[in-house]
Amino acid sequence: DDVWEVVDDHHLDGTYAFGDFRDALEFTYEIGELAEEEWHHPDLHLEWGEVRVEMWTHKIDGLHKTDFVMAARMDRIHEQYAPA
Amino acid sequence: DDVWEVVDDHHLDGTYAFGDFRDALEFTYEIGELAEEEWHHPDLHLEWGEVRVEMWTHKIDGLHKTDFVMAARMDRIHEQYAPA
Repeated sequence: DDVWEVVDDHHLDGTYAFGDFRDALEFTYEIGELAEEEWHHPDLHLEWGEVRVEMWTHKIDGLHKTDFVMAARMDRIHEQYAPA
Repeated sequence: DDVWEVVDDHHLDGTYAFGDFRDALEFTYEIGELAEEEWHHPDLHLEWGEVRVEMWTHKIDGLHKTDFVMAARMDRIHEQYAPA
């Protein structure tokens, strides 16, 4: 999986591709809902055909197992969308 | 209105504040829907309590009346949310 990169041993940075704005918007909403459920909130950058996610655990100002679990769940959600 | 700034005579940059992640997410979805209706797609940056919008008209690589009309519509949508 090529989506995620660990940056500065501090956060995950991943970019998902989509075929259009609509899919990127729906994906943003879906992972926003996941963030609310898990009470773990990434930064989300939405533009045409792309959603970039930056994620870390604010309480420890770094990476925790939770971040990697969330990343894997986002990957699975992304698989439900049409390839870009 | 303090939300919007014209940057480099090229694009609008505006940041809206919210009381939580949920409202910021719902607002992102609402203006994403507006973008689809108008077929005019900004870049949207969502984080806890905040949505930043960058918007310009790609066809002319600069600002058009459409951008200012969209900005005003976003302002009106934002008024429906609870103050941050």
